[in-house]
Amino acid sequence: MIAVVRDTATAEQLDHLVSWIEDRGFRTNVSQGDNETIIGIIGDTTRIDPFILESMDIVERVQRVSEPYKLANRKFHPEDTVVDCGHGVLVGGGNFQVIAGPCSVEGDNLIEIARAVKAAGATMLRGGAFKPRTSPYTSQGMGARGLDLLMEAGAELDMPVVSEVMDPRDVQLFLDKGVDVLQIGARNAQNFTLLREVGKTNVPVLLKRGMSETIDELLMGAEYVMSEGNANVMLCERGIRTFETRTRNTFDVNAIPVLHHLTHLPVVGDPSHATGYTRYVRPGAYAAVAAGADALEIEVHDCPSRAWSDGSQALTPAQFADAMRRIALIREAVVAPVEEA
Amino acid sequence: MIAVVRDTATAEQLDHLVSWIEDRGFRTNVSQGDNETIIGIIGDTTRIDPFILESMDIVERVQRVSEPYKLANRKFHPEDTVVDCGHGVLVGGGNFQVIAGPCSVEGDNLIEIARAVKAAGATMLRGGAFKPRTSPYTSQGMGARGLDLLMEAGAELDMPVVSEVMDPRDVQLFLDKGVDVLQIGARNAQNFTLLREVGKTNVPVLLKRGMSETIDELLMGAEYVMSEGNANVMLCERGIRTFETRTRNTFDVNAIPVLHHLTHLPVVGDPSHATGYTRYVRPGAYAAVAAGADALEIEVHDCPSRAWSDGSQALTPAQFADAMRRIALIREAVVAPVEEA
Amino acid sequence: MIAVVRDTATAEQLDHLVSWIEDRGFRTNVSQGDNETIIGIIGDTTRIDPFILESMDIVERVQRVSEPYKLANRKFHPEDTVVDCGHGVLVGGGNFQVIAGPCSVEGDNLIEIARAVKAAGATMLRGGAFKPRTSPYTSQGMGARGLDLLMEAGAELDMPVVSEVMDPRDVQLFLDKGVDVLQIGARNAQNFTLLREVGKTNVPVLLKRGMSETIDELLMGAEYVMSEGNANVMLCERGIRTFETRTRNTFDVNAIPVLHHLTHLPVVGDPSHATGYTRYVRPGAYAAVAAGADALEIEVHDCPSRAWSDGSQALTPAQFADAMRRIALIREAVVAPVEEA
Amino acid sequence: MIAVVRDTATAEQLDHLVSWIEDRGFRTNVSQGDNETIIGIIGDTTRIDPFILESMDIVERVQRVSEPYKLANRKFHPEDTVVDCGHGVLVGGGNFQVIAGPCSVEGDNLIEIARAVKAAGATMLRGGAFKPRTSPYTSQGMGARGLDLLMEAGAELDMPVVSEVMDPRDVQLFLDKGVDVLQIGARNAQNFTLLREVGKTNVPVLLKRGMSETIDELLMGAEYVMSEGNANVMLCERGIRTFETRTRNTFDVNAIPVLHHLTHLPVVGDPSHATGYTRYVRPGAYAAVAAGADALEIEVHDCPSRAWSDGSQALTPAQFADAMRRIALIREAVVAPVEEA
Repeated sequence: MIAVVRDTATAEQLDHLVSWIEDRGFRTNVSQGDNETIIGIIGDTTRIDPFILESMDIVERVQRVSEPYKLANRKFHPEDTVVDCGHGVLVGGGNFQVIAGPCSVEGDNLIEIARAVKAAGATMLRGGAFKPRTSPYTSQGMGARGLDLLMEAGAELDMPVVSEVMDPRDVQLFLDKGVDVLQIGARNAQNFTLLREVGKTNVPVLLKRGMSETIDELLMGAEYVMSEGNANVMLCERGIRTFETRTRNTFDVNAIPVLHHLTHLPVVGDPSHATGYTRYVRPGAYAAVAAGADALEIEVHDCPSRAWSDGSQALTPAQFADAMRRIALIREAVVAPVEEA
Repeated sequence: MIAVVRDTATAEQLDHLVSWIEDRGFRTNVSQGDNETIIGIIGDTTRIDPFILESMDIVERVQRVSEPYKLANRKFHPEDTVVDCGHGVLVGGGNFQVIAGPCSVEGDNLIEIARAVKAAGATMLRGGAFKPRTSPYTSQGMGARGLDLLMEAGAELDMPVVSEVMDPRDVQLFLDKGVDVLQIGARNAQNFTLLREVGKTNVPVLLKRGMSETIDELLMGAEYVMSEGNANVMLCERGIRTFETRTRNTFDVNAIPVLHHLTHLPVVGDPSHATGYTRYVRPGAYAAVAAGADALEIEVHDCPSRAWSDGSQALTPAQFADAMRRIALIREAVVAPVEEA
Repeated sequence: MIAVVRDTATAEQLDHLVSWIEDRGFRTNVSQGDNETIIGIIGDTTRIDPFILESMDIVERVQRVSEPYKLANRKFHPEDTVVDCGHGVLVGGGNFQVIAGPCSVEGDNLIEIARAVKAAGATMLRGGAFKPRTSPYTSQGMGARGLDLLMEAGAELDMPVVSEVMDPRDVQLFLDKGVDVLQIGARNAQNFTLLREVGKTNVPVLLKRGMSETIDELLMGAEYVMSEGNANVMLCERGIRTFETRTRNTFDVNAIPVLHHLTHLPVVGDPSHATGYTRYVRPGAYAAVAAGADALEIEVHDCPSRAWSDGSQALTPAQFADAMRRIALIREAVVAPVEEA
Repeated sequence: MIAVVRDTATAEQLDHLVSWIEDRGFRTNVSQGDNETIIGIIGDTTRIDPFILESMDIVERVQRVSEPYKLANRKFHPEDTVVDCGHGVLVGGGNFQVIAGPCSVEGDNLIEIARAVKAAGATMLRGGAFKPRTSPYTSQGMGARGLDLLMEAGAELDMPVVSEVMDPRDVQLFLDKGVDVLQIGARNAQNFTLLREVGKTNVPVLLKRGMSETIDELLMGAEYVMSEGNANVMLCERGIRTFETRTRNTFDVNAIPVLHHLTHLPVVGDPSHATGYTRYVRPGAYAAVAAGADALEIEVHDCPSRAWSDGSQALTPAQFADAMRRIALIREAVVAPVEEA
């Protein structure tokens, strides 16, 4: 961390500030520039709130130079983490997977959808039993019964099951049911109470990026989970909020290589939420795998009785099957060895 | 709600869509334009997910024309809501208040700060006992002991106490301690589990806008609380996330009159979080009252032992006292009767 | 276009408004909802400023239902436009190209870079002779001499040349030199004076999206060029401004399929500016081609004398050659025919 | 400027980098931290592109510690600049003014509006003769004839005239007509060609912030004008683009005190564009003056023949007169001397 001190500061004020920093157990390095003085603050600066320093009258600006996350930081853990999701399915470190299924578990059609996505090559099954809805007047999900349907389908098809948990009081229920991966949704990305709670388990966590979370804040969310002892965290880019309204969110596909640079944790791309419209989900999925995602999470829905509709942002099984063939080819192109010139 | 249908749709497809909508209990009005057809959907459209319609192949675009919130909507409740916060302190409907106190309750200095802000004219006391911190490695607050200190100060000075609750499992503790106003922080603005939980009480709720929440989403958050039976909701603009980095957040001062237009609930401005730097808090406070806020929430900290610092984004008691005089004058200017020409 | 009228409006006010609209040559369709009335406005609504209507007291909200662009609109021109950039190079309608070269033309190394990118498969040469720099104290480019060097390299290698024009007074110079494609930079995306000026030529225009331009505004920029008679417009997604600071811009890869949906004009992806860091350019390039871009524009720089640097956001020729092989494979995966189930 | 070097860099690589920096005429200060090394770069770093350094393999991150603008920087020019706009009207350094008039000059009603705003206390007259319109199909303004009407009104009422120039080729026309203040619109905020052109005159410039311009970029725009010799620059906050759609822009009222902190140039607030709706213009105006603006620019329109309309984002003369009384009271509250405790 560095503190930039104004050139209006007196030598005494500067000494006072340096002493204050050193009293807190840090070393300092003072560098005199032409128009300002820079104090380098050396030590474990994750313990300092930069805003405290920045609010001092003689301090112009404070900047972190090292990241405030440790456990999630590739600097201290250079090797890729591989998360074992159960049923022999690994994510990260060269292992690529596709998670698919309906947005919400609705009932008996779940098993049909699950069979279809498995046949097309999906290796993990997703489905929402508890739903975070922006309106209190719309369905909030099937709850525990939805988890049962998911677990039955997962067992029949030998696929790990991913489902979202919203309430810290429900974590135990998810464990009791045997859910393989606990998903934390974008709206709870900074619900630190919930992050700590899933951190106390040893079940893999799929942590979605908040709608306006920076990449560094997403990593601090992972750090919350990991600091409680659970190192099995996968990070998911699912679109961020911007001024553009032609899509539900803006897919920050850059975040995929940036995360690979900053962290050893696996990175998942969710083109369904990142675009919000069926017609854009496939280009989004191809972009995510092309950018290096370790997994994709894609909503698929089969609605034969509503042939003229394809469900909000879901692919039909046929669209998904076509997409899977292209995804496999793109993955191959990305991981092919570098040719000699 | 209207659905815009492409001109490539056949008459049969259009009929099919109209029937589907009417089967769900809505009336329709079909208007044929030059290049598209518009279906007006009449009825309680809060029950429809616009994305479902928009994903249909023949549908170009779906737009809500009425807001999905009812209880919070000024259309159905034209009179301003006045929230009674206890100790005779009312917010809204012409009643203006200032909430002040430290960011975090730290110990014995609380009562000193409380006396200072009361002397300067503050009518409500704030303080954090449970703190949402972006890093798991920094202090998470004093917890229950902090609430006790707050309640003691509130009792001595006859001021209602405002404090943030983060965990649905803590709501009962806040009730037991007698906290007068339950604050929901920006990071929990769409933590629907927590919103429902405080909605089951009858204690006033101070609901902060999420960092990237639209004004309509903030109102849907209020709707969550109100739909459980608690109508005592105050909405707080505390800065949104944008591309600008010279301040911690961007103070969306426009949101204050927009909220007054859309809802009958009182609107609070928080210039401390909205700016993030002591030097900008006072201009932010003046702007908020000038824009018509019903209350301000301002962080004040007294740190005699750290005379060269004024605490992150806090005002000193002296700065706060000066600000209060100007705030009173600005409030007068805003609410003065319109003169005849 | 629809206008939502408040239910507080009297019948007389509503009639008055309908007459006002009809007096301007539009037809109307009035639909009475439960809580509001919707007036459908039928005719060429590109001539109406929605803000005028929206400011009327009885009007709640105005929404366009059809796009205000005509010439750029796929609705009125369903077939893909193919832009002929000269030297036999076509963009769009199934023709895929890669534009490469240095950010700025610096001198004799241009021809070396040009040979390298051509050898790797690039089909168009880019280079900046006039540079929009955020600081007046940094180099503003080689000017006319830079254009000469570009044209010499293009002639030697039989490649069309793309270069940015910033000043309407320079357009004639670009024509005189024979520049094949006039690039309009992001900062001039809404410089309507410049857009009109290039619209008066018949030279292909590569129009970059402004840093905070919506997709619809980008299309209105194209409409400015086309309304002057020049239909040879290519649109370029080059990253937008968001709250994320780990990359120079946020690559809105969604914009690629959205543009294909809305317009018949070719779409170009620029991963160099969209990421801003060499290490993220290749994943960005792969994402853009995977999402369906008709062309890529990539900065390449050869700096043998600075072996430890690879230039701001540029790829080395070796990195570019590796990228080109993968880009070709990804393009194949995307355009492969759909297999029968 | 500091460069953060990875701890994987060898001593030789670090030496190489330090030599490279020093060869360019800078001094360095190397500070060894626990997990990274920081190189302080001392000298005139406005000449360095941080992205060049940041792209080097061993460099983790580069951060400016001093601003890249000099002439606009308060550090080097602590006293407030007072801009003389003619007719005895000064802006800045304690001088507060209100600029008012119609969005576009439409004809004979201009003089009526001008008389009304002058009677209410406005001291400068605004009006658009050349209009940047997002659509090529809407009116582009009256042009030179509009300037004549403005100058006649200004002469009659002894008020300086403010009008927007869009094309560098029109600057001479504005000078010939005698326009008192050249306005640069938000869309041209980074049109460096135009900024240089107005910088070559000695006429005051009112520079509007771009829709997604950071405060630092706005100051770099001012630097462009000033570096050509014209020091008479006023900066205008007019709303920025964010995700919120309930207003046309988000009024970044924080920018007003931030600009006062960073620069000596006067700061103007434009609540008409910053809100976009008549009903929010007055709260926005009060907020801007409360936050410390040196001037306001407000659109006023008189439309007796359209009594049911108040014009897009314009105030009526009666609304403006009421606003002016409150603005004066708020200005008094803000600049009142600090009372002794």
